[in-house]
Amino acid sequence: MSDQTETLEPNVRTGDVPPRDADGHIDPDWIQALRLRIDAGDAEAVSELMAPLHAADTGDVLEALDAEARVALVRLLGDQFDFEALTEVDESVRNEIFEHLPNAEIARGVAALDSDDAVALLEDIEPVDRDDILSKLPAFERLSLRRSLDYPEDSAGRRMQTDFIAIPPFWTVGQTIDYLRGEKDLPDEFYQIYVVDAGYKLLGMMPLDKLLRAQRKVQIEEIMNADVIEVEAGQDQEEAARVFERYDLVEVAVVDDSKRLVGVLTIDDMVDVIHEEATEDMQLLAGVGDEDLSDGVRDAVRSRSTWLVVSLLTASLSSLVIGLFDATIEQMVALAVLMPMVASMGGNAGTQTMTVTVRALAMRELDSFKLRRLVSREMLVGLCNGAIFALLIGVVTWLRFANPELGLVIGMAMVVNMIAAGTAGVLIPLTLDRFKIDPAVASATFVTMITDVVGFFSFLGLAGLWFHLF
Amino acid sequence: MSDQTETLEPNVRTGDVPPRDADGHIDPDWIQALRLRIDAGDAEAVSELMAPLHAADTGDVLEALDAEARVALVRLLGDQFDFEALTEVDESVRNEIFEHLPNAEIARGVAALDSDDAVALLEDIEPVDRDDILSKLPAFERLSLRRSLDYPEDSAGRRMQTDFIAIPPFWTVGQTIDYLRGEKDLPDEFYQIYVVDAGYKLLGMMPLDKLLRAQRKVQIEEIMNADVIEVEAGQDQEEAARVFERYDLVEVAVVDDSKRLVGVLTIDDMVDVIHEEATEDMQLLAGVGDEDLSDGVRDAVRSRSTWLVVSLLTASLSSLVIGLFDATIEQMVALAVLMPMVASMGGNAGTQTMTVTVRALAMRELDSFKLRRLVSREMLVGLCNGAIFALLIGVVTWLRFANPELGLVIGMAMVVNMIAAGTAGVLIPLTLDRFKIDPAVASATFVTMITDVVGFFSFLGLAGLWFHLF
Repeated sequence: MSDQTETLEPNVRTGDVPPRDADGHIDPDWIQALRLRIDAGDAEAVSELMAPLHAADTGDVLEALDAEARVALVRLLGDQFDFEALTEVDESVRNEIFEHLPNAEIARGVAALDSDDAVALLEDIEPVDRDDILSKLPAFERLSLRRSLDYPEDSAGRRMQTDFIAIPPFWTVGQTIDYLRGEKDLPDEFYQIYVVDAGYKLLGMMPLDKLLRAQRKVQIEEIMNADVIEVEAGQDQEEAARVFERYDLVEVAVVDDSKRLVGVLTIDDMVDVIHEEATEDMQLLAGVGDEDLSDGVRDAVRSRSTWLVVSLLTASLSSLVIGLFDATIEQMVALAVLMPMVASMGGNAGTQTMTVTVRALAMRELDSFKLRRLVSREMLVGLCNGAIFALLIGVVTWLRFANPELGLVIGMAMVVNMIAAGTAGVLIPLTLDRFKIDPAVASATFVTMITDVVGFFSFLGLAGLWFHLF
Repeated sequence: MSDQTETLEPNVRTGDVPPRDADGHIDPDWIQALRLRIDAGDAEAVSELMAPLHAADTGDVLEALDAEARVALVRLLGDQFDFEALTEVDESVRNEIFEHLPNAEIARGVAALDSDDAVALLEDIEPVDRDDILSKLPAFERLSLRRSLDYPEDSAGRRMQTDFIAIPPFWTVGQTIDYLRGEKDLPDEFYQIYVVDAGYKLLGMMPLDKLLRAQRKVQIEEIMNADVIEVEAGQDQEEAARVFERYDLVEVAVVDDSKRLVGVLTIDDMVDVIHEEATEDMQLLAGVGDEDLSDGVRDAVRSRSTWLVVSLLTASLSSLVIGLFDATIEQMVALAVLMPMVASMGGNAGTQTMTVTVRALAMRELDSFKLRRLVSREMLVGLCNGAIFALLIGVVTWLRFANPELGLVIGMAMVVNMIAAGTAGVLIPLTLDRFKIDPAVASATFVTMITDVVGFFSFLGLAGLWFHLF
C-alpha cells in the first residue's frame, strides 16, 4: 500500500502522517485508531497522534470524523489545536465546532493565525459572537481584523494578509537584508518586499530572488520592479483571482481608495477562490446552489426543492401546451409516444450551448469580437444538428410507424427546436448577465422551458395542422 | 471610463496598455487601431503598439483578432514576438498560427522560452514537425525538452520547469548568496532553492525568505526545510494540483523514479490545471467535451452531435416505454398531458444529486466515511422531495382534471421517480468511477435515461393498473 501511496501521492518525509490511500484519503484504520483514543478521552495519546500533522491534514481528519468526535478532538487537543485547520474544512463543519467552543477559546486560537486566516474564520461567525471574540483580542490585531471585515464579503480586502514588509526606495540591498536579519516581527512567509513612499503609496515591488542576486551597495529603487500591479481592496475576489491568472502572480499588493498599501493577496487564497468559483457555477447550473458535501438532509432538501418548484412550474407550462392538443393526440397516440423525443433532444442541445456560454461569461472570455463569433456559431450549430437529427429521427419514425408524413412532421419540429435551443442557449445567459443576474443560477430553467414548449408546440402543432389540412 | 477601469481592474502602471473595459476586455478601439496598422503592413507602428504588452496581454490581443490578422501580426513582429503569448491562447488559435509559421521560426521562439512553456507549445504539435523543431534547438534544450515530452500527457513531468537552483547542504548562507550573485545562468524567477546530495537526491528546501533572514555563516542544512513534499514526474497533473492546494505550496519538487530531482512545478501552471479541470467537468456533464470557445462550427457540431446521438437513443428508449402504454393513453389523453412532468421532475432531481456526486469525486472528497454519509443523505433527500412534490402535483392534478385517482397515481409515480433519481444520481457516477470511467462524461445520460424510463413507466404503468383494476 505504501508503494502505491508513493506513486499516487506526494511522499511527505515526516513519516507520512496520517497515512493516505491511493486516492489521497486518510487511511480509515488510522481514523479508527484516533477515534478510539478520542472516545477513551486519552488526551495524551490523541495529541501524540495529531502532533506531526500539517494543518491541512488536521482539517481532513476533522472532516472524516463525525460531529461529536470533532468537538471532542478539539477539546482534547486544547491549545495544541491549530485553528488554521478550521480554514481547511467546510463551513458547516466549522460552525458546528464553534458552537461548542467558548468565545475566549476561539479568540485564543484566532489570535495565533495570519490575518487572512483569522478573517476567514471570523466572517462566518454570528456578529454578536464575532464582536465578543474580537473584544478579547489584542488591540492591534483587533483593529486590522475589523478593517478587513469592513470590506464587502468576497472582496480582496477580506482575503488579504495585512502583515507584509514595506521599505523605502532609498535603502540599499545591504540595508534591506540587514533589516530582514535583524527584525524579529516579520510575517512567517513572504515572496516579495514592497517599496513605498512616506505616505505608504506603492512605488514598486522587490522580488526576493532579485534582492538576493543584487550587490549589497545597490539601491532598491534601481532594481525594484516598478510595473506595479495593484488590486483595490473593494474589488471582488474573483476579479482579483483573474488578475493572478492573467499575470501569473504569486503575491499582489492590495491598496485602499487613497491608493495606500493595506495588504497583500497570496496565490494560495486565490487558488481556493478559483476552485470555489468553478464548483459554484457547476452547482448553480444544476440547481444545487452553494451546497456543501457535509450539508445535512434538511439543508439539501431546502436548497434543492426551491429549484424543483421552479422546474415544476416550467413542467406544468409544457403540460399546458400539450393540453392544447389533446384532441390531436386522441386522434393519433403515436404523437404522445414521440413528443418527448423532440423536447428532450432540444433540451440537451440547449444545455450544451448554455454551458459553453455560461462558462465563457464566468471567465470573462466574451469580448464583443468573441461574442459575435459565439452567437453566429451557435445558430449554425443548431441548424446543422437540427438537420442531422431531423433526418435521423424522421426516417426512423417513418419506418417505425410506416407513416412518412409523421416522419416529415417530427423532422420539421426537430429542426425548429434545435434552432430554438441554440438561440435560447446563448441569448438567455447573455440577457441575464446584462441584467446583472448570475447566468449560472437561472439559465438552465429558462432554456429547458423554451426547448420543451417549442418542442411540444412545434411537433403537436405541425401534426395538427398537417392532419387538419390533409 | 478609465476611473471605472481602475476600480474594477488592476492598474498596471505602465500606462494601462492595452486599455481594458470594465470586464477586463481589451478596448475594441485599441484593437481596431492595431488592426488598421496590421492591414497596412506597418511593422514599425505595430511593434510600437505591441512593445509594452505583457505576454498575457499579447495573448488576449491574438484571441481578439481574426485568423488572418493573428498570423499577420506574428509575421510583422518577427523576432520581437514573444512566444510565451502563445501559452495564453486556446489550442485552436495556437495551431492555426503554427500552421503559417516555418519550423525554424517556431524553433527560434521556443528556444527563448522557459522549459515548461516550451513543452506546453510543443506537445500539441504534430510529431513530425515537433521533431523537426527540436532538431533545430541547441543540444541541451533539446534533451531536457525531449525528457519532459517523454512523460505521459497531463503528467507533472510535462508541466515541470527543468531549470532550478540546487545546492549542497554543507554550503553556508554566505556561499549561497555569493553564488546567486555571481552565477549568470539562473532561472529568471525562483521562490525556493533545492538542497540535494551528490546524487541529486532531494534533502530539503530553502525558501528565499528564510535564506535572507539567516546569518551568512550559518550552514544551509541547519536552516533548510527538511519536510520535503515531492511529486513524481509520472503523476497526473491534477493529483499534483491537489497537492499544491492541500499544502498551500508555491513551488514543489518533481522527482523521477529513482527519486532524483528533475524539475520543479510552479503554482501558476497549477492554477491553469485547476481551472481546466473544473471547466472540463462542467462541460463534460453537459456533453460539450473539451470544446474551446474558439472552436469552429464543424468541431462544435462534431463534438456535440456524438453526445446528441447518445441522448437520441435514450430518448427513443423512453418513447418505446411510452409505446407500451398507447392503449392506456388512448383511454385517457390526460396521461399524455401529464407524463412529461413526472419525467422532467425526476430528471432535475437526478441531475442535482449527480452533480454533487461528480464534483465530490473529481475533488477526491469522498473517503469511505463521507461516501456512506452521501448515499444515505441522497436517498433521504429523494424521499423528502418525492413526498413534497407528490403532494403538490397530486393535488393540482386532482383539481385540474377533477380526478382524485389521477392525482393519487401521479403522486405515487412522483415518489417512485424521485427516489429513483436520488439513487441513480449517486450510484451511477460512483459505479463509473469504480470502472475508471470519468463520471463526468457519462453520468448525465444514464441518470436522465433512468429518470425518464422510471418516470414514464411508473406513471403510465400505475395508471394502467389502476384503471384496469377499477
